[in-house]
Amino acid sequence: MSRYFTEDDSVATVNARMGDHIDPRLRQVMASLVRHLHAFAKDVELRQEEWDLAIDFLTATGRICSDERQEFILLSDVLGFSMLVDAINNRRPQGATENTVFGPFHVDGAPELEMGANISLDGKGERCLFFGKVVDLRGRPVEGARLDLWSDNADGYYDVQQPDVQPKWNNRGVFTTGPDGLYRFYGIKPVSYPIPDDGPVGKMLASLGRHPYRPAHMHYLVTAPGFQKIVTHTFVAEDDYLDSDTVFGVKETLIASFERVDDGDAVWRSQFDFVMTPEQEVAA
Amino acid sequence: MSRYFTEDDSVATVNARMGDHIDPRLRQVMASLVRHLHAFAKDVELRQEEWDLAIDFLTATGRICSDERQEFILLSDVLGFSMLVDAINNRRPQGATENTVFGPFHVDGAPELEMGANISLDGKGERCLFFGKVVDLRGRPVEGARLDLWSDNADGYYDVQQPDVQPKWNNRGVFTTGPDGLYRFYGIKPVSYPIPDDGPVGKMLASLGRHPYRPAHMHYLVTAPGFQKIVTHTFVAEDDYLDSDTVFGVKETLIASFERVDDGDAVWRSQFDFVMTPEQEVAA
Repeated sequence: MSRYFTEDDSVATVNARMGDHIDPRLRQVMASLVRHLHAFAKDVELRQEEWDLAIDFLTATGRICSDERQEFILLSDVLGFSMLVDAINNRRPQGATENTVFGPFHVDGAPELEMGANISLDGKGERCLFFGKVVDLRGRPVEGARLDLWSDNADGYYDVQQPDVQPKWNNRGVFTTGPDGLYRFYGIKPVSYPIPDDGPVGKMLASLGRHPYRPAHMHYLVTAPGFQKIVTHTFVAEDDYLDSDTVFGVKETLIASFERVDDGDAVWRSQFDFVMTPEQEVAA
Repeated sequence: MSRYFTEDDSVATVNARMGDHIDPRLRQVMASLVRHLHAFAKDVELRQEEWDLAIDFLTATGRICSDERQEFILLSDVLGFSMLVDAINNRRPQGATENTVFGPFHVDGAPELEMGANISLDGKGERCLFFGKVVDLRGRPVEGARLDLWSDNADGYYDVQQPDVQPKWNNRGVFTTGPDGLYRFYGIKPVSYPIPDDGPVGKMLASLGRHPYRPAHMHYLVTAPGFQKIVTHTFVAEDDYLDSDTVFGVKETLIASFERVDDGDAVWRSQFDFVMTPEQEVAA
């Protein structure tokens, strides 16, 4: 390695600068980050004006962030990076319910409701009965499973995006299973919607020839003592955007049937069973 | 490639999403960026909480940016990324003056001065005569070469960092060579200084066991019709930080002797010749 910076030895020179007594995991992560970032610049022979654009892009992305908006998470999402990190951290055995992205719209403290309650408070949308069971890998009911769930309304917005328009806790609720592991509640059939696309990430998507839409989905955060937390959605089968979710959240096993029933009780019925993985178990 | 996102096919899935009619260079750069970012996450098996930290870090880096401060450039600098991009874009023949980082402290419009003028206006520091010649690759004088130069003051700050303390244009000036290609001006012997380290990048450096210092240097932007622009520094030989410039700017050929003379005219003399490369010529 040369004493000073050279194009050929750039990675070794930068990484050799780290101190002797730093956290070993930090050293590993940063060394790999530098190696991959430099490999990227060398691979494309990144031009000075492209670097300028990248600095401007990151700065604009930072500028639009606020308590209500996280543009760096959006960026990670649309590059498939969020899904990748989620996949790496949640490898599960065959048959277990898979994770997908958490998304920015979860709110702690949603109302704890009785099975059969209705979470749609704004009177909009097509009423849908959601039901199914929470089981372990051997199909046995999981008692005390907590389903914290949320969706957009019929206009494609979460309540927190429209605090002056939607009732508080619209399309949100928490349900806890009994000994039979069953759950059941009423909401609306969710609708597809664009991620916020009036910022730098939206501009980037446009220049990449990509749309900003997510297929319709219901979010679930399912927890139970002794089991791995499930952060997932169920996706509405036959949604136009299933094959092109702008954040890459769709997995085959998470697509749920929505059956049109129009039975007076509801317009739609959607069944989905959650299969929980024991805390310490990972994919074979 | 699977229809939906999988850990194994993550790169192909994300890159296949780009439209058919986008700019080919943008496609190439983004595809490579996604490939290298995903390879990084897979290499270190990036943990969810590390991703959370990265989002927080980028957000804090964005938050501290202002018209006077560019924390993303600092980040690029301390990761050696700025020097790498500069190196890739400025490969020159043996013997030509090399580039180094531009830095954030250049200001357009500095005074055009006569050869022999003094740029130090605050009366601080050790007076130094800077002199030499601007030549082409065959050693012939370059007439009309414009040397736009700037340094910190004896306290380690550029004038723009201390608008209420330093006179405007302190330690800045523009000189243009005549037919002999010679230049000559008075300033001070520059001093080493830390990059701004009270933000996220400074915290990162500390956690990596790295100091924030740059070795003392004089900045030069040298331009002449028909030649490649030189963006460089001359570094003060024997500076304590030559081997550990926090932005990796030092190159062997840019280290200039500073000879103590104390001859009544100045305390120091520093000679450096600039060798310019024709516009279209690149390294063999």
